[in-house]
Amino acid sequence: MENVSGGLRGKPAADALDLETKETVRALRERGVIPTLAILRVGAKSEDLSYERGAMKRCAADGIEVRQVLLPENVSQAELLGRIQALNEDSTVHGILMFRPLPKTLDEQAACAAILPEKDVDGVTAGSMAAVYAGKGAGFAPCTAEAVIAMLRYYQVPLRGSRAVVVGRSLVIGKPVAMLLLAEHATVTICHSRTADLPAVTREADLVVAALGKAEFLGAAYFRAGQTVIDVGINWSETKQKLVGDVDTEAAAQTGAAVSPVPGGVGSVTTAVLASHVARAAQRRAGE
Amino acid sequence: MENVSGGLRGKPAADALDLETKETVRALRERGVIPTLAILRVGAKSEDLSYERGAMKRCAADGIEVRQVLLPENVSQAELLGRIQALNEDSTVHGILMFRPLPKTLDEQAACAAILPEKDVDGVTAGSMAAVYAGKGAGFAPCTAEAVIAMLRYYQVPLRGSRAVVVGRSLVIGKPVAMLLLAEHATVTICHSRTADLPAVTREADLVVAALGKAEFLGAAYFRAGQTVIDVGINWSETKQKLVGDVDTEAAAQTGAAVSPVPGGVGSVTTAVLASHVARAAQRRAGE
Repeated sequence: MENVSGGLRGKPAADALDLETKETVRALRERGVIPTLAILRVGAKSEDLSYERGAMKRCAADGIEVRQVLLPENVSQAELLGRIQALNEDSTVHGILMFRPLPKTLDEQAACAAILPEKDVDGVTAGSMAAVYAGKGAGFAPCTAEAVIAMLRYYQVPLRGSRAVVVGRSLVIGKPVAMLLLAEHATVTICHSRTADLPAVTREADLVVAALGKAEFLGAAYFRAGQTVIDVGINWSETKQKLVGDVDTEAAAQTGAAVSPVPGGVGSVTTAVLASHVARAAQRRAGE
Repeated sequence: MENVSGGLRGKPAADALDLETKETVRALRERGVIPTLAILRVGAKSEDLSYERGAMKRCAADGIEVRQVLLPENVSQAELLGRIQALNEDSTVHGILMFRPLPKTLDEQAACAAILPEKDVDGVTAGSMAAVYAGKGAGFAPCTAEAVIAMLRYYQVPLRGSRAVVVGRSLVIGKPVAMLLLAEHATVTICHSRTADLPAVTREADLVVAALGKAEFLGAAYFRAGQTVIDVGINWSETKQKLVGDVDTEAAAQTGAAVSPVPGGVGSVTTAVLASHVARAAQRRAGE
């Protein structure tokens, strides 16, 4: 843990997680297992390419092999499902990351359901969702949701008995973060676009997780001194011509809250979580 | 909707739900489909017997056939799974209700997982859990959790934008109720044994759902005028020698909150929800 006066940066939390992953990978490689992630990308959206680069760099650093399966944007559903099936059956592949959203011509739900649950390192199958919801069973949470918890753990933010407010209820972040915080024994409130007097609700919290997807939406009125704020938003600001979070970071910091920056916050931890999931998936299989 | 000054009784809500179920059953029977529930009971615990009697009476009134599968307490896991398999394969059975907890000698999780998701009318499979969590997809919520929503709907309690506090985080009630309330656009807080200053949290709410399983634990300090309180607890009070809820009903009512009684509250709605699930499961199959 480091001094948080400069905001809650993601890199040290990612580095700490990487240390564990490297150790797991080392032990697996000694037994002849090469942890391998398959990245399945349809088309070539710039966000996907950017995340892919980060994931490949992280995996390389951690000793995890990456296999890219690149499909054209006009790929058929049958071809996509065939590729997923092949990755499911390939015993040298331990994790599958499929970029979403898929092009509208494809049935994304069916594609997610086709992924073998034990290779579902980004928590998109019903089995993973049920495990996150139930707080037990094999399955992985979506990487970004778990990256929030990794940040809080690294910065030793007390969660048991604390009041956590999650703003956003998506299946990728809001809901899984809420469930993971509940498993850590926080008292969890889930807010969304229909929440009345949102600033009053967020000010009550010890911890605020912002995942609503609106550029710098949460200003000074939403925060108070002593709070921890994890900003999961990644939005392009036309006015500032740069990436910004869901929190107006400067305004929030002036209230005395400790805020994670964007970029450089939780986003930096996501690929470290992905790598750790691949290592754990390989470990589980090797343990059989 | 009726006057709520006498507390939020379950019977009228159950009766309203029954009207819909009867209509669905009538239409199915006209097409030659007889909606059928299989009740799978291991042993003969008094709570199971009592619920079973209620369920059978309700189903009979609604035109739903019930088939009982009664197994001795020392039944083997293989025999139990074989019976579940047979019910899965029997096309005349639309819903399966298995009493839990099972005796400790049995693997309850494996038994739940063996139930065919489309016949899982009490929401015990991973598929149902994922559907409740995701707020979409085929699957049923646990009957008691949905009975809470049926009560709120019947009494026209406004949920959108309201603040709901759920006390308890079990998979049978707390978590699914929280997810169902979220789908109704309430701002939802989930509390539990580790929550700090619980009375302060519940007093903030417009709606409190009590599902902690402690006899008359929530007294006057937890409530305020204008609140709706749904008491899901069913506990045997040694002092009073009768069934009581998680709420001290008299004390709560004196604060001006509208409280559902125990017995006669949400418990009266559960079997109506069960019957409605069986009718809907039969309808879905017939619609294929």
